[in-house]
Amino acid sequence: MSKNILNAPEGMKSYLPKEALKFYEIRDRISRVFQNWGYEPVITPVLEYYESLLTGMEQNTQKEFYKLIDYDGNILSLRPEMTAPIARTVVNRREELSLPLRLSYFAPVFRYDNPQEGKNREIFQMGLEFIGGNSFGDAEAIITAIEAIKSTGIEKFKLDLNHIGFLEGIVEELPLKGLQEKKLKEYLGRKDFVGLRNYLDNIGLKQKEIIAQLPLLRGGIDILNKADDLASTEASRKAVEKLKDIYEYLESYKVEDYVNFDFSLIRGLNYYTGMIFEGFTENLGYTICGGGRYDNLIEQYGGQKTPAVGFALGIQRIALALDYKGTSSIDGVVLLTEKTSSQALKLARRLHRKDYNIIIEENNRSRDELIKLAHQKNAAKIISIRETKSQKEAAEIEVLDTNSETAEKVVLKEGWEKKVWGK
Amino acid sequence: MSKNILNAPEGMKSYLPKEALKFYEIRDRISRVFQNWGYEPVITPVLEYYESLLTGMEQNTQKEFYKLIDYDGNILSLRPEMTAPIARTVVNRREELSLPLRLSYFAPVFRYDNPQEGKNREIFQMGLEFIGGNSFGDAEAIITAIEAIKSTGIEKFKLDLNHIGFLEGIVEELPLKGLQEKKLKEYLGRKDFVGLRNYLDNIGLKQKEIIAQLPLLRGGIDILNKADDLASTEASRKAVEKLKDIYEYLESYKVEDYVNFDFSLIRGLNYYTGMIFEGFTENLGYTICGGGRYDNLIEQYGGQKTPAVGFALGIQRIALALDYKGTSSIDGVVLLTEKTSSQALKLARRLHRKDYNIIIEENNRSRDELIKLAHQKNAAKIISIRETKSQKEAAEIEVLDTNSETAEKVVLKEGWEKKVWGK
Repeated sequence: MSKNILNAPEGMKSYLPKEALKFYEIRDRISRVFQNWGYEPVITPVLEYYESLLTGMEQNTQKEFYKLIDYDGNILSLRPEMTAPIARTVVNRREELSLPLRLSYFAPVFRYDNPQEGKNREIFQMGLEFIGGNSFGDAEAIITAIEAIKSTGIEKFKLDLNHIGFLEGIVEELPLKGLQEKKLKEYLGRKDFVGLRNYLDNIGLKQKEIIAQLPLLRGGIDILNKADDLASTEASRKAVEKLKDIYEYLESYKVEDYVNFDFSLIRGLNYYTGMIFEGFTENLGYTICGGGRYDNLIEQYGGQKTPAVGFALGIQRIALALDYKGTSSIDGVVLLTEKTSSQALKLARRLHRKDYNIIIEENNRSRDELIKLAHQKNAAKIISIRETKSQKEAAEIEVLDTNSETAEKVVLKEGWEKKVWGK
Repeated sequence: MSKNILNAPEGMKSYLPKEALKFYEIRDRISRVFQNWGYEPVITPVLEYYESLLTGMEQNTQKEFYKLIDYDGNILSLRPEMTAPIARTVVNRREELSLPLRLSYFAPVFRYDNPQEGKNREIFQMGLEFIGGNSFGDAEAIITAIEAIKSTGIEKFKLDLNHIGFLEGIVEELPLKGLQEKKLKEYLGRKDFVGLRNYLDNIGLKQKEIIAQLPLLRGGIDILNKADDLASTEASRKAVEKLKDIYEYLESYKVEDYVNFDFSLIRGLNYYTGMIFEGFTENLGYTICGGGRYDNLIEQYGGQKTPAVGFALGIQRIALALDYKGTSSIDGVVLLTEKTSSQALKLARRLHRKDYNIIIEENNRSRDELIKLAHQKNAAKIISIRETKSQKEAAEIEVLDTNSETAEKVVLKEGWEKKVWGK
């Protein structure tokens, strides 16, 4: 049999219940935080017109797109991220919406990357977009990202903050050509600081020291003063000022310990216009979230210029950083025999109605096999109906405890379930 | 601006919060039922190898596939349904799994259909697969489908049941060529009974009466006796017998009122081997779920022959049949001013910690605009901090009720939130 019949495509996989339950537990915890902050879910299609994605994302991530041509000749693409599709939706449906909009999502996105450990081509992202908001928005995005990560149980993590105006303020003074500026950002983006210095030497840039300093501008709040000293343009100074304002908000909400500043931070997407950030776990050291301000994106889709900020969390990477296992909770197994099936089903129905999780199995296994099955499903009790002449509801059952492996008779009178399960 | 920049691809759309919240409410209610029956979630990739999907689904739905060629030259396809990918996964990961498996999913699937009202090309399906189960499995699938639909609030619906062995038993006696059999099933599948009769006349089939009778074999339990009379082969009789057994289980679980039998029912997928069913709402009259037994599918992926049964529900269609609106519940808006921002954020933090849903807004709107904003978000209260000389935590706030439009002072002492929100 061809390998392609049994496997998922390269960089993708199925998630069995233990993993899926963990993802959904993370989803539910983060959803709670998003709800607490007033965010409401939005769903956009997995497929978008390629042209539409490019409008928002520009060219720099083109090679990562999964593209297809539909039967009408349109080029479609699986969305590689959610911000551009949400911006498109907000402009397209503006008559049904009113600002400010607080939108959240849980969605798979698709990137044709080289698969590495912890790097998937189908990425489950959870995030939010705050569109048409106020100047507190930057802090709101950072705080909700921190609260979302904390809610999952991850404690050791940091967010690196930057403001793209700082580097842009430096660059506007330098005699750089377009391509040189792009190259420079690429070195920074890869955090290849040796390569950066060599490149600066190569192009013979006199003012290279200021750029070579960027990787050193990394740390706590004190770094902002150093950055201020280095800032030689209005744009750079304004960027530092903005970061100071944000930091004050973070202090008030008591999350300042989770952030650092990093003036060499560059994000891979072109639509950012202000504050940007990335979060990573301290143990694993890879990025678990990223985001920033994108004040021009709504306009790029033909809407009015609208301030906006957002971020996305990578659910698979968060799951990797967490120990807890997804387990389902089965309360019991009800056994069917030919003679007692009607009574057993009525009993199962009553238990389902009371929100007990009950599996129904035919009684065609040995006692040992049954106990093994129950253990696999974390089921504490196995219930058999004691045969009686009456075909009506059962009056008495046998309850086998799957841990002690002892059985007891239980008379089905008011409140028997609580006696059996202690709940 | 090109139309393709603002719109979703044909047959697809974004769902704004009201619709998305409704979908998630339906998802959560149905999840509860699936959990009650011991089902655990599985996630499979949106993209599959085309060859893999064909292995499970055979050729009859090929034209509905969205296909793409990846950069390595593999043909991939967006999954058009979940049963084949789950069967693939179960065989591929068999060493991590043990039977019986009760798996559930909530997932988008993609079909290149002609979009009609209520017919989407991106379909949100929720369903389950019971793999390696017992002979009660048919009834379990039908009952969980009924319980799932009921949990959403839909009361007026019916499931049509059939067993493909009945028609196969009839057909095995007839002198039909392969293509004729296929044509015949197509007429039945479309419920084009006039066309069916003309076709039977056309091919000059002597025994056509028995097939022309199929559309009349529709109704309650009594129809099974009529079907038994018509059944001229062992296979047909066994099919009727099996449906009788299933019906008895449904009676025991008290859901028999939700089912009819329909011996002309045909499902569009080739992998079914036994009982099949479709559910529809009585008002809207379109299919909201479908499923059946597929005992050969695991084997087609190279696994051991394993009994299996499952079904899928269409979430968009269920949502169409339901009146309730998705609304989020914001408890209040906390206003920031420059002077009180620190105190306001500390207050918001305390409220978030107590699981209140609180939006933070800058106080740069008129009172009327603020009330309008609060109404849009269903927020009952707007909270301002009363300025004091101290920059520490606030001692007193002003609470504006957005319905009565009256404001009151509230002193921040133990339990003040309960006084404000009554919870």
